[in-house]
Amino acid sequence: MPDTRYDVIAIGNAIVDVMAPAEDALIEQLGMVRGGMALVDTERANVLYAAMGSGVEISGGSAANTLAGLSALGAKCAFIGQVADDQLGAIFAHDIRAGGIDYTTPPRPGQPPTGRCLIFVSPDGQRTMNTFLGASHFLPLSALDVEAVRDARVLYLEGYMWDPPEPREVMRRAIEVARTAGRTVAFTTSEVFMIDLHGADFRALIDDGAIDILFCNHHELAALTGTEDFEQGVAALAPKLEILVATRSADGAVAVSRGERAEVPAVPGVTVVDTTGAGDLFAAGFLSGHVKGESLTRCLQLGAVAAAEVISHYGARPEADLQALMAEQLG
Amino acid sequence: MPDTRYDVIAIGNAIVDVMAPAEDALIEQLGMVRGGMALVDTERANVLYAAMGSGVEISGGSAANTLAGLSALGAKCAFIGQVADDQLGAIFAHDIRAGGIDYTTPPRPGQPPTGRCLIFVSPDGQRTMNTFLGASHFLPLSALDVEAVRDARVLYLEGYMWDPPEPREVMRRAIEVARTAGRTVAFTTSEVFMIDLHGADFRALIDDGAIDILFCNHHELAALTGTEDFEQGVAALAPKLEILVATRSADGAVAVSRGERAEVPAVPGVTVVDTTGAGDLFAAGFLSGHVKGESLTRCLQLGAVAAAEVISHYGARPEADLQALMAEQLG
Repeated sequence: MPDTRYDVIAIGNAIVDVMAPAEDALIEQLGMVRGGMALVDTERANVLYAAMGSGVEISGGSAANTLAGLSALGAKCAFIGQVADDQLGAIFAHDIRAGGIDYTTPPRPGQPPTGRCLIFVSPDGQRTMNTFLGASHFLPLSALDVEAVRDARVLYLEGYMWDPPEPREVMRRAIEVARTAGRTVAFTTSEVFMIDLHGADFRALIDDGAIDILFCNHHELAALTGTEDFEQGVAALAPKLEILVATRSADGAVAVSRGERAEVPAVPGVTVVDTTGAGDLFAAGFLSGHVKGESLTRCLQLGAVAAAEVISHYGARPEADLQALMAEQLG
Repeated sequence: MPDTRYDVIAIGNAIVDVMAPAEDALIEQLGMVRGGMALVDTERANVLYAAMGSGVEISGGSAANTLAGLSALGAKCAFIGQVADDQLGAIFAHDIRAGGIDYTTPPRPGQPPTGRCLIFVSPDGQRTMNTFLGASHFLPLSALDVEAVRDARVLYLEGYMWDPPEPREVMRRAIEVARTAGRTVAFTTSEVFMIDLHGADFRALIDDGAIDILFCNHHELAALTGTEDFEQGVAALAPKLEILVATRSADGAVAVSRGERAEVPAVPGVTVVDTTGAGDLFAAGFLSGHVKGESLTRCLQLGAVAAAEVISHYGARPEADLQALMAEQLG
């Protein structure tokens, strides 16, 4: 395969995480579902922020987190996503570029502000997310760098972005471009409620062969396939994809490709501080192996180690030297 | 002593810290002094930020950090400091209020933006700070809540704020108000270069008896007294103060009050992650004991434990339950 300018180009939400520790009683009192993700409007965001403890701000966004991991693992990456022309937007843009990722989407003037995600972190490390998408909603078709998509081995799309109409249009167009150029399309279903809202679209994309690599967790697999039985879900979905990657938290992960099946346990002995970004970094590790032509098992192992790193500290971006970590843990 | 509305009211910079790990080679290449603090203008801030890695934003400001610690230790606190009417200002205001501290200074519209401090954290945990003071420079005399100062047992002032003329005027007036009301004035010299700039003012305040409690580290003590000999410095300064508190990093701290001397070692066995806020939290612990009438030795112990907590993680605000920590380590 000839070299491409990018290994992975991603389209996703451009948001900053605002994280604070919280007791489960507060999460219940505020009417949030522990471990879930809810989209919130300005008013609700203000109520939740007022109830939140003193926080830490760290750049986030699911696909952007995945790219941060991929870039740290040596992949050449580009990101497309919309921030506003404000301080949080400048922070997001700085951080993604500081990670060595090409990012050229111009900031959007005026309101709404850059998106943010209010993350309440329980004492056991479980995260409960409330996302105010802000400017992310308004990613215009003009932000799609068609040449960059054509010149990237993998197009990675974030299911969270399927809800607002403008970014959905950008992603549909990006899939066409990647398909026509013979590139690989990877997609994460992101969250069960995105499947509740847009499952018909997701299933149609899968049935039409528009997705090569699908990332989901066991809850999302159940929602997509309509069966709570993990193995039945895998058996139903895998034949429609080049690669299915299904994670199941502490029970590890499974990948199936053309009838070949691989499986890894979760990395043992990890002290969970904050689970934010676990799925994002699993995808980063997996794809870092995939673009180098590694085996399914090796790709899963890379995913598991990257996920274990990110849950061992606050925030959804890797802190450790991931390449050194892989060398140490996987050889 | 009759109860006051506040134990401690502080006037200080209202800034957000932007922190990222950095190799010492980068710090040298950028012309920074490792371990130091420099005031930077917008242009220099932009150059440094562009060279910085992906960061974490955490509310900071020396005196504000001290109040965060004091409030966590059960003291009733209020803060006076200037943010702009922008996103970082909203973050600063949220975080200080979330810490249970009264904060009513209205945000300042227009430019400059809220101050920030770019902090490069070396692999050994040493921090190198570059402060863009922004709106903090423009704290007006109208922001001085005279009634609150009269009704606070201790007025705590940050030496860092002495440079810009408007906040200096606010602090001079606050000292008068506190003096007239018979309150205690505490002052931190903050940094050697503040003494280089304003040592004459600081010495005059001390000689005039305007300061009751002075916090400084051994470098600042040397700059203030003109002698590198720690004991000579203490002997020269202590008689002019109600209490002198002099810290010396890993060598612990000394307090002298009316001829009585107390001394504590640093807390042993601490894994240093980031030294930002060590002095601020030492002052918090010390003052938390002082307002309760604890002994000099106990005040120093409280300071040492609070400082040890804050250097064990990123950021200058306490993360652990400080009251529980004090109970566990000091009984």
